Formats: sequence, C-alpha cells, structure tokens
Amino acid sequence: MIKVSVLYPNQQGCKFDMAYYCNTHMPLVRRLLTPAIKGVAVEQGIGGATPGSAATYVAMGHLLFDSVESFQAAFAPHAQAIMGDIPNYTNIQPTIQISEVKL
Amino acid sequence: MIKVSVLYPNQQGCKFDMAYYCNTHMPLVRRLLTPAIKGVAVEQGIGGATPGSAATYVAMGHLLFDSVESFQAAFAPHAQAIMGDIPNYTNIQPTIQISEVKL
Repeated sequence: MIKVSVLYPNQQGCKFDMAYYCNTHMPLVRRLLTPAIKGVAVEQGIGGATPGSAATYVAMGHLLFDSVESFQAAFAPHAQAIMGDIPNYTNIQPTIQISEVKL
Repeated sequence: MIKVSVLYPNQQGCKFDMAYYCNTHMPLVRRLLTPAIKGVAVEQGIGGATPGSAATYVAMGHLLFDSVESFQAAFAPHAQAIMGDIPNYTNIQPTIQISEVKL
C-alpha cells in the first residue's frame, strides 16, 4: 500500500478552508480516483512539539493506493480537475510526498 | 481524535533503520503509552510529486490519541525512555506536529 501525502505548509498570510477541503475537494478526489483510491484522511495542524508552538503544516491530506503505478494511472487523466480545484480552498503551494505504508 | 506525527526530514548523510523503528521503537512506544495510545502508523518515503524526485521525509510515524491532554499525560512520564531510544535508529532530528483528525 502507498500513501500520497499532501502537506500544506503553515506560511504567513496563508489561507485554508478546511470545510471546503473536507466537504468538497476530498469527495471530488475520491469520486475521480475511484476505484484506484483505497482511503482518504485529513488532519488539521494544532501545534508543534512544545505547547504554544505553531504547527509546521496547517493541513495534511492523505490518499491511499495499492501502488505508485495505480496512483499515477488514476491521477493522470484527472490531474487538471483536481489541481484546478486547489485555489478554491487555499493559497498554499503544497508539498507532496509518496510513501510506502510499513505499519 | 488527535494525531502526533513525527516527521524525519530527508537530509544529506541521514541514517534511518526502518526495521528497528517498526520492530523495536514503535512497540516500545505502544507499550509505554498504553492505554492512552489508540493507534500507530509508519510510512517510508519513496519520492516527491515528480517521478525521480526525493521524498521530503525518509520516514513518518503517527500516534493517535483521544486528545492533546491524554497524549501529554501519557507521554510525560516516559519521554526520556522514548526520546532516548531515537539514536538507536536515526541521526535525524525529527519535526513533530500535533493535528486534529478531521476525516
């Protein structure tokens, strides 16, 4: 199983509409990438290790797939629709990481 | 539900023993933080958004708790044992983020 993590860095002046992300963007992603997509998760940054410190990421979205190949094959035809929806909820340029799920 | 994410940045010269992390460190964390800990997950970085690019994090560990308070109460008495085990598997100073699970 692989996980595509979309990490939104906490930058000065950044905007992130969590309601739109959870209620509109993620359902769109899930619909377009079905049946390849095996699960989604969303987290909102609260803070860092020390109390009162800022979170490194305001939000993180995670998408699960069987393999990198199945992700790429599912994503390519819908990349424009998915990427084009990003300005509807944030002005942040996300960091994307692909990981292998170990545990 | 909150998630404590421990992110290990992919730095030049970094070492990370994934087998030790999954088979020794995470079981230690789970044992010491029971019953507060509600779940653990581990991912190994494969790459970034573009094929062939490096992953931002070589590894990510995630710990689930009911609340920030339950995490802090469980972690404080075992912080030294858990943090003291880190040099056994990596020379990376991790980035820690606490997030609220939204989806």
